[in-house]
Formats: sequence, C-alpha cells, structure tokens
Amino acid sequence: MIELVLGGVRSGKSRYAESVVKTTPGPWGYIATGRAWDEEMRHRIARHRADRGEGWITIEEPLDLVGALQKAKGHPVLVDCLTLWLTNLLMEERDIASEKARLLEMLSQRVDLTVLVGNEVGLGIVPENALARRFRDESGLLHQAVASVADRVTLCVAGLPVVVKQ
Amino acid sequence: MIELVLGGVRSGKSRYAESVVKTTPGPWGYIATGRAWDEEMRHRIARHRADRGEGWITIEEPLDLVGALQKAKGHPVLVDCLTLWLTNLLMEERDIASEKARLLEMLSQRVDLTVLVGNEVGLGIVPENALARRFRDESGLLHQAVASVADRVTLCVAGLPVVVKQ
Amino acid sequence: MIELVLGGVRSGKSRYAESVVKTTPGPWGYIATGRAWDEEMRHRIARHRADRGEGWITIEEPLDLVGALQKAKGHPVLVDCLTLWLTNLLMEERDIASEKARLLEMLSQRVDLTVLVGNEVGLGIVPENALARRFRDESGLLHQAVASVADRVTLCVAGLPVVVKQ
Repeated sequence: MIELVLGGVRSGKSRYAESVVKTTPGPWGYIATGRAWDEEMRHRIARHRADRGEGWITIEEPLDLVGALQKAKGHPVLVDCLTLWLTNLLMEERDIASEKARLLEMLSQRVDLTVLVGNEVGLGIVPENALARRFRDESGLLHQAVASVADRVTLCVAGLPVVVKQ
Repeated sequence: MIELVLGGVRSGKSRYAESVVKTTPGPWGYIATGRAWDEEMRHRIARHRADRGEGWITIEEPLDLVGALQKAKGHPVLVDCLTLWLTNLLMEERDIASEKARLLEMLSQRVDLTVLVGNEVGLGIVPENALARRFRDESGLLHQAVASVADRVTLCVAGLPVVVKQ
Repeated sequence: MIELVLGGVRSGKSRYAESVVKTTPGPWGYIATGRAWDEEMRHRIARHRADRGEGWITIEEPLDLVGALQKAKGHPVLVDCLTLWLTNLLMEERDIASEKARLLEMLSQRVDLTVLVGNEVGLGIVPENALARRFRDESGLLHQAVASVADRVTLCVAGLPVVVKQ
C-alpha cells in the first residue's frame, strides 16, 4: 500500500501520516529527508524524533531516497518529506527526471506500507523568484507522478484527512 | 454546534458562514475582529455591515475574542475572522498559546451555534519574510486546534462548501 | 454542460479538462487565452498544441473570450485558461465587471459542452504587491461567478479530480 499525504504548512500531514503507519505492527522506518543545516534545525529534528516516540527507526537521507527505501525493506515506512527531498535535489542540481523515475519504479515494486508526505505549495500567487517558480512546477509534477502510482492520496485540511484517491 | 469555515481569499467563506448562522432564529451576533486602521477600512467595515442586512448585532473586538463570545451568550454567532484576530494578537505580541487555550475552552462549553471563519494561507510557496512564516505556522496550528473541537469543518472553493468534517 | 476546473500550478488541470472534452465527439475547440510575449512563450504554445494531438481547432484570443466562444458555437470547447484571460484584462485596464457579466450571460445560453480552466491562487500568504492582491481578489470573484452558473466544479489535486459541485 502506497499512500501520498499532501497538505499545506501546519495542516497536520506528518501526524496523520504517522497514524497511518502505526496501524501496522512495527518497528516502523522513518526516512527524514531534511538537512540539519544549523543548530536550530538540529534541535527541531531531535524534538521531532522525541515526539514520534518509541518504535521508529530513523534513516536520515537528504538525496538517495531510493537507497533509503531499500534499507527499510520489510518494514512499513514514512517518508517525511518529498518537499525537502526535492529541495535538496534542486540545490545539488541533480537530474530531477531520473531521480523521479527511480523513485516511481521503486514504489511500484515495494510491497510494504509506504506513506509519503508532501507540502502542497502551488495554490498561491506566482512567485517573482524564478527558482521558486521552478520549485513549484517540479513539486506539482512530482506529486502528480507519485499520486499516479499511489493506492491512496489524502489532502490534510486543518488536521483532517480528505481522501482524494482511494 | 461549532463550525469552522476555511477557504482562500474571495472564496465565499463569509457569505457561506452567514447563510449557516441565518438557518437559526435571530438576532445573530457578528464578532468583527478586523481593525479600522484607516478611512478605507472604515468604509469597508460600514459596507460589510450594510451588506449583512437586518438582524445582526455587531461586536467589534480585535483581541478579546473570548470576552466577545461571552457577550454574545444565548445568541448564534459568526466570528469573522480568526485570521484577523491572530494578526492582531501577533502585532500586539500577545501570548498566542494561552489565548488559543482560552478560546478552545470557551468553544467546548458554548451551546449556541458558533461559526468561525478562517483564511487558509498555507498552500503557497514558503514566504521570505520571517513574520509571514510565523503567521502561516500559527494560523495552521490555530485552525487544527479549532477543527479538533468543531462539530463541522468546511472548506470553501469558488463559493462552494466542501465538507471536511461532519 | 458547463464545467469549471480549478487547481494549483501543475495540478493536472489542463490534462483533466482535455479528457472531459474528449468524452464527446470532435472536432473540439481550444480557446487559448495566453499571449505569445516572447520566443519562449511561442515555443511553449507550439508544444502544448502538439501535445493535444489531432482533432482540436485552436482559437487564440487573449481578450474577447465571448467572441471566441461565439466562433466555437456548435462545438465542445476548452477554455485554457480564465487566469491568463483575467491577467490580460487587468494589463489592458479593461472593465472586469462588464467582461465578466458578458461571459456569464454567454455561458448561461451555451448548449455545447464548455470546460473552463482556472488557477487557484488565493490559498497563500497575502502578497505585498498591490496588483497581485487585486489579481487574487478578482480571480476568486471570477471563479465564484463561473462556479455559480456551472453544472460541475472540479478541484484538481496532484492530477486527481475532486468534485466540488455536481
């Protein structure tokens, strides 16, 4: 079962995604794609880890998401999140199309429960910054691609899951 | 009955929220949290009041929302809106967490129909402005908190209500 | 049948709208409201036309949308998109209210399948730019007005249609 969980900032995406993963027996894999740039980010990551509680195996992987999913083989897994992964790929000028193709192939083969979280960022005014525009475009295309192979797609609104595909 | 009505700018939130309140016998309380900063805003507020028509008792209260809800005890009430209230709390550097806790306690005790409107602002690109980022975060958390005690949550899209929680 | 298709950037709106139009026998009208400002835009328009494939009659019309709909009388038609049309009206300082009234009257009379695409831009933080704020407001009001005369309204999320009005 592949589930894509979308939503705005602070819409309760991660908490909902965790609850989905925890419906299956653990231990659960947690693939954290965010980078600990500075002290603040390190604190935030540590706090998130504490919030999740027992039973999670954290894999920190900013770029090689497919490799991280391979490591988590046999376990239900939460990918938090596609948006930071895409940000890292763009910052490192990686080939987005080929990374996306690798991820889709991996997801189509995976048998364990896999929940992927993504920030919906395309419903505001067109940004003046060209990189922000490219990021919005790539983010929308990535979500469409993952949604097309997902068994369920959910949009979180004020902490509540709205099923978009089932 | 507590209902949270979310939506983007000019999505028909206020009109829908008014229609919900008007399903019950009046007079209806209207808690306006927006501040009349200047002549333009004063005109806008006067026009909105005229648009609502007869039967509404307007309470202008930018900060003490719980106090305003107490005044409206025994009446159906529309809070328009949480977003301007949050803006005012942030501008005045009030303690958001304690104000939110007071509101939630009030809502959990209230027996009269209460419809609260909020602007969904978290579905665009991350803003460069730090205060705007904090505002987005606090807004999302406030909506989650109110949604958790609400009996119904509605998202307005192009003037149409989409039920998110019932 | 009038259908309004809303969604964020790269949410699969146009592809979904094309699939709706293609459920009826062609040839299908395609009203392109985007302007070929520069070489890049000319390439993009040519590529979009090639992507749509055979069977489409393209009408390029940045301003007189009602006139373009009259030309397409007797054919199913896709309007792609309301957002670029509104942008052009604002840039040329046209009277938005009267153009909108003409469009609504036209749509209420039209008997052929008509699918109109619009970008949802009102779910982010308030922009600092005054023109962007006005654009957001006009866009929300235009979507509300078209939605009120539409038989179906759909919101695209990650390429998936969510029915908002049916």
